[in-house]
Amino acid sequence: MDMQKRIERGLERAITFATASGNPAKISQAIRYSVFPGGARIRPRLCLAVAAASGDANPAAADAAATAIELLHCASLVHDDLPCFDDAELRRGKPSVHSVFGAPLAVLAGDALIVMAFETLARECISTPDRIAPLISTIGRAVGMPHGIIAGQAWESESEINLSEYHRAKTASLFTGATVSGAIAAGASPQQWMGLGEALGAAYQVADDLRDSVCDEDEIGKPKGQDVVHNRPNAVAEFGLAGAVSHLQMLVKNAADSIPDCPGSDMLRQLIMQEAKRLVPKKLALTAA
Amino acid sequence: MDMQKRIERGLERAITFATASGNPAKISQAIRYSVFPGGARIRPRLCLAVAAASGDANPAAADAAATAIELLHCASLVHDDLPCFDDAELRRGKPSVHSVFGAPLAVLAGDALIVMAFETLARECISTPDRIAPLISTIGRAVGMPHGIIAGQAWESESEINLSEYHRAKTASLFTGATVSGAIAAGASPQQWMGLGEALGAAYQVADDLRDSVCDEDEIGKPKGQDVVHNRPNAVAEFGLAGAVSHLQMLVKNAADSIPDCPGSDMLRQLIMQEAKRLVPKKLALTAA
Repeated sequence: MDMQKRIERGLERAITFATASGNPAKISQAIRYSVFPGGARIRPRLCLAVAAASGDANPAAADAAATAIELLHCASLVHDDLPCFDDAELRRGKPSVHSVFGAPLAVLAGDALIVMAFETLARECISTPDRIAPLISTIGRAVGMPHGIIAGQAWESESEINLSEYHRAKTASLFTGATVSGAIAAGASPQQWMGLGEALGAAYQVADDLRDSVCDEDEIGKPKGQDVVHNRPNAVAEFGLAGAVSHLQMLVKNAADSIPDCPGSDMLRQLIMQEAKRLVPKKLALTAA
Repeated sequence: MDMQKRIERGLERAITFATASGNPAKISQAIRYSVFPGGARIRPRLCLAVAAASGDANPAAADAAATAIELLHCASLVHDDLPCFDDAELRRGKPSVHSVFGAPLAVLAGDALIVMAFETLARECISTPDRIAPLISTIGRAVGMPHGIIAGQAWESESEINLSEYHRAKTASLFTGATVSGAIAAGASPQQWMGLGEALGAAYQVADDLRDSVCDEDEIGKPKGQDVVHNRPNAVAEFGLAGAVSHLQMLVKNAADSIPDCPGSDMLRQLIMQEAKRLVPKKLALTAA
């Protein structure tokens, strides 16, 4: 089964458990709406790709990790779009969760997705129970306090921001969580996969800044120019457009170079170069070519 | 060490991990503010009491479960108080989290507390790793979808409410989670402890409705009359004042009767009767005496 199918099947399974009969209807709809149809599913793909490159000895554990990571990513999008943060009306090319279901159900849907992520790990790793604790610790660290995506978002409430810590927490942490948990699921050494997650996460942050700056809303499926509106630190303001593009190219090269020797290293390198192409806005790809 | 000390020590330990150096400062303050000083800590006390009554063979696992349950309870209070829900200015006798830190940090603090709960279970059950999955499943079910406290809160967004399901999900689920996880931590059979959680949860809901209806704000540490303001189904509206008091007394008796034969059953029965006394508003205790 290909990666994309494994990811969608894992998410569908988690949502089926959460929306079993007897549940209140609207939040069930809001949860499903938060997860389907997805974006690029880049974090769970990265998790499964590292597991595959490491031999994928326990595909159920890898699927559980990939599912948990995407559920947590979706939760962060739902909460970040709330009126008290970005107040974004659009996400993934459709109205944001709170625009459709209201803020109360958006808060609750995000909360439910966080709980579902950890329930998924406990439920789906039944044949490899020794993976549960390290997967929870890894994924918990990637999303929580003091250095995960929640901490990253919380930096925006500080009067003085530690920029490198902010970027690492807000974006890179969940990429690192994805590579490391893929390795843990497959029984490989997690340490050697941290560099890839960090480099890709940093690249993704720069690409996101570029897209926010130059793309149309249609292309990115959410409001543009948000970094300027919210006065958020970003790579385009820091390096200029051309500088941000070169910085991105360097980070992608770092990512490809960081892949350790393993049976699937070529496949993974290809995936990264392909992803890098997708990430650079079309206009800039021409300029930078 | 007495129960109260174990609970406060477990919570302090979880917060110390979450607010390690390098973290953004304000959310760390908001997290600590959400948890300390606590309320009655009734759910974690119940968890530890069941573990003790069952022999408390693995106190570290019981402490982890009690900590996780209280962190999740605190998360639910922080989110329920948000402007988009109750918009409560007061909680546990002091300004609510969003009143002090703003809605964005209140949303994030709640999210962080949820993640911390599951990280605590994975980290603290290191010497009894076989308990991690059942504890996560039990506690996840108690807070998440389709029947946990998040589902309970979500019922308030439905136009037609399933009343028994609403009460069971909103309050009783976490009490059941507390008794069952205490039994799991101690290695006892969890099934026989479900009845106690359900009966106590139902009693607590009725007591909360009574307090909302007749107590002063000073006594309950939060705004009163919220059930009427938010048009929420409640026991006083359903049974009248005297009827609600008798209903509460019956539920407490059911709870005490449901305690299975075990070495600590007398201690637990005492704890419940003492708790029941505390729960009934002083005015009504006189009336009902």
